[in-house]
Amino acid sequence: MSRFLDGEWLSEAELTEKSEDGSFDRQESVFRDSVRADPDAEFPVESGRYHLYVSYACPWAHRTLIARAQLGLEDAISVDVVDPYREDGGWQFTPEKEGCTTDSINDFDYLREAYKLADTNVNGRPTVPVLWDKKNETIVNNESREILRMLTTEFTSLATREADLLPEGYEEEVDALLDDIYQPINNGVYRTGFADSQEAYDEAVEELFEALDEYDDLLADQRYLAGDRLTEADIAMYTTLVRFDEVYHTHFMCNHKLIREYENLWPYLRDLYQTHGFGDTTVMSHIKEHYYTTHPDVSPKRIVPKGPNPRFEAPHDRDRLTPTPDAAD
Amino acid sequence: MSRFLDGEWLSEAELTEKSEDGSFDRQESVFRDSVRADPDAEFPVESGRYHLYVSYACPWAHRTLIARAQLGLEDAISVDVVDPYREDGGWQFTPEKEGCTTDSINDFDYLREAYKLADTNVNGRPTVPVLWDKKNETIVNNESREILRMLTTEFTSLATREADLLPEGYEEEVDALLDDIYQPINNGVYRTGFADSQEAYDEAVEELFEALDEYDDLLADQRYLAGDRLTEADIAMYTTLVRFDEVYHTHFMCNHKLIREYENLWPYLRDLYQTHGFGDTTVMSHIKEHYYTTHPDVSPKRIVPKGPNPRFEAPHDRDRLTPTPDAAD
Repeated sequence: MSRFLDGEWLSEAELTEKSEDGSFDRQESVFRDSVRADPDAEFPVESGRYHLYVSYACPWAHRTLIARAQLGLEDAISVDVVDPYREDGGWQFTPEKEGCTTDSINDFDYLREAYKLADTNVNGRPTVPVLWDKKNETIVNNESREILRMLTTEFTSLATREADLLPEGYEEEVDALLDDIYQPINNGVYRTGFADSQEAYDEAVEELFEALDEYDDLLADQRYLAGDRLTEADIAMYTTLVRFDEVYHTHFMCNHKLIREYENLWPYLRDLYQTHGFGDTTVMSHIKEHYYTTHPDVSPKRIVPKGPNPRFEAPHDRDRLTPTPDAAD
Repeated sequence: MSRFLDGEWLSEAELTEKSEDGSFDRQESVFRDSVRADPDAEFPVESGRYHLYVSYACPWAHRTLIARAQLGLEDAISVDVVDPYREDGGWQFTPEKEGCTTDSINDFDYLREAYKLADTNVNGRPTVPVLWDKKNETIVNNESREILRMLTTEFTSLATREADLLPEGYEEEVDALLDDIYQPINNGVYRTGFADSQEAYDEAVEELFEALDEYDDLLADQRYLAGDRLTEADIAMYTTLVRFDEVYHTHFMCNHKLIREYENLWPYLRDLYQTHGFGDTTVMSHIKEHYYTTHPDVSPKRIVPKGPNPRFEAPHDRDRLTPTPDAAD
C-alpha cells in the first residue's frame, strides 16, 4: 500500500497500477472493517445506518447490489449511484444524468471527498463499492468480497426475502470458488485489457479462457457453481460474464470467444440474469459508457460501440438441473 | 486530391483523412493508367513486364493476389510483399521478416521511393496495391478495383487457369455489386473504426450491418453474389469478410455481430476460403499484426489479441446451390 503514503490524491492519469513487465497490478482496498450481527461490535447491524456508494458500471460494486436485492435489504441499506463516466477527478455525482443520483448522505460532488472525510491521510484511486456508516461518518469497508460476505452473513436479521447466499455446509466451497475465479476471470479481464506488453496480455488471456472453458464444463451437469444452490460465487461470476460480450470482448481484447458461444456458460448467464436481483440491477448503458469512455489508453476515441445486445431474456432451461426438494434431501 | 499539391511526403501521423464531422474520408488513388490487351497501347500486356507491390495485410491489395492466383498469372506478374507493420515512413521492405520480401525491382527500402520514382511531384500516403511497369519504371495504377479489372479482362492471354471472373453477361451486375458493397462494407469497416465522433461511428456501423444482413439474405439461395458464378464481386467481399472476426470486430469496434454468426455469410466465406487463390493468399499473421500495431489512435497498446481463429476449413455445403452444368445451360 506504499502508494497511499503521502496523503496526496493521484489523478486517474497519474495513478499507475502497472508492474515493470507490463502486467496489471490492482491496488488493494484500504478500508477493511466489518459490520457485525453482534450489537456490541464497533459497527453493529442496524437498519438505515449503512449506505452503499456504487457505480452500475463496476462489476465489484454490482456484487453488493445483487446481494442487497436478493436478500431484500433495500429498505435497510440505502444506495447512491455515481456517474459511469469517470474523469480525472474520479467517480462523481451527476444527478442530472439518467440512473445517477446525488450524494444523499454528504452532498459531495466527488466520491474522493467521502474517502477524505473517512481518513484525511488516504489517497490513491477512490473505488466503488463503499460501505458507509452514516452514524460515524466513515467508510466501514471498500472491498467488494468482504461487503458481499457481510450482507450474506451479518445482515440476515434485516433481510426481507428468503434467500441464503452462503448455505450451511457450502462455506468452504464458496470461498474456494471465489478465490479460484478472481485472478483468471474477475480480475483476468482487466489483466488482459490493461496489459502493457504482449507477454502480459498473452499470459492473462490464456488463463482467462482456460478458466472459462473449465467452468463451462463444470456447469454442464450442475445449475450453479457450488452445485444446486445459488451462492455468492454465482454473483461474483455473473458480474464479469454479463459485461463480457458487450465490453470485455472488444474493449479489453478478450476476443477469443464470446460468452454466448459457450454451451453452458451462456444459458447459465441467462438463468442468473432472469433471477431476482441480477438482471434488474444490470444497467448496460452505464456499463458500456463507463468502459469505452473512461480508459483512453485502451479506447482513445471514447466512442461507445453498437455491441451485440445479447438476448439475456431468452429461455435457458437450466432448471432441469436443479434436483427437486425431495431428491435433494 | 488537393493534399498532393506541394510535393512533400506526409507521415502517417500527419496525414489526415478525416472530415470535420469526424467521419473517415479515404484519399483517392493517384495513378489511373491501364494495361491493355491491345499491343499498341501505352501499357500493352506482356509476360514478365508488370509487377505487384502488395501487403498481405491489406484487403485492397489482397484482391489483386486472389485474381492473379485464380487466373494463374503467377509467372506473368511478379510480386513483392511489404512488412505488415507500417511505421511513420509508410510501407517498408523487411526481407528478414517471415512472409516479407525485398523490393526485387528497385531494391528500395520504402514503397514511397517507388512512388517518387514514378512521379517526383506526388505525395500523400503511399498505398498498396501498386501495379508497376518494369520497362518504363513507373506506376501504371494503384487503384485495386481497376487493377483487378485489368487482370480479369486484359491479361487473359497470359492466364494459365481456366477461370473467368467477369463472365459475359455479368458485367453490369458485377459493377453494380462492387459499387454497392464498397461504401457500407469494404470501406464501411474503416469508416466505423476510424470515426472520430459518436455520430460518424453510429452512421457507419448501422450501414455496415444493414448491408451485411442484406447480403446474408441474398446468399441464402445463391452460391455467389452474382448468382451461380464466382466473380470479381466475391473477391471484393471476401477480403473484407475474412478479416472481420479477427480484426474489424474488435479493432474497428464492428462488434454487433461476428461473420461466423451469420447463417449464410459464414458458409459463403468458408466456401471462398477453400477456393483456389483465396485461403492460400490469406496470411492472417500479417493481417493481425498490421491492424493492431499500426493504428495507435485506435489500439494504442499495439498488442495483437488472441482472436477467435475461425475454422475457415470447416465444411460449407454451399455447392448444393450451384446448378450442375447441364441445368445451367
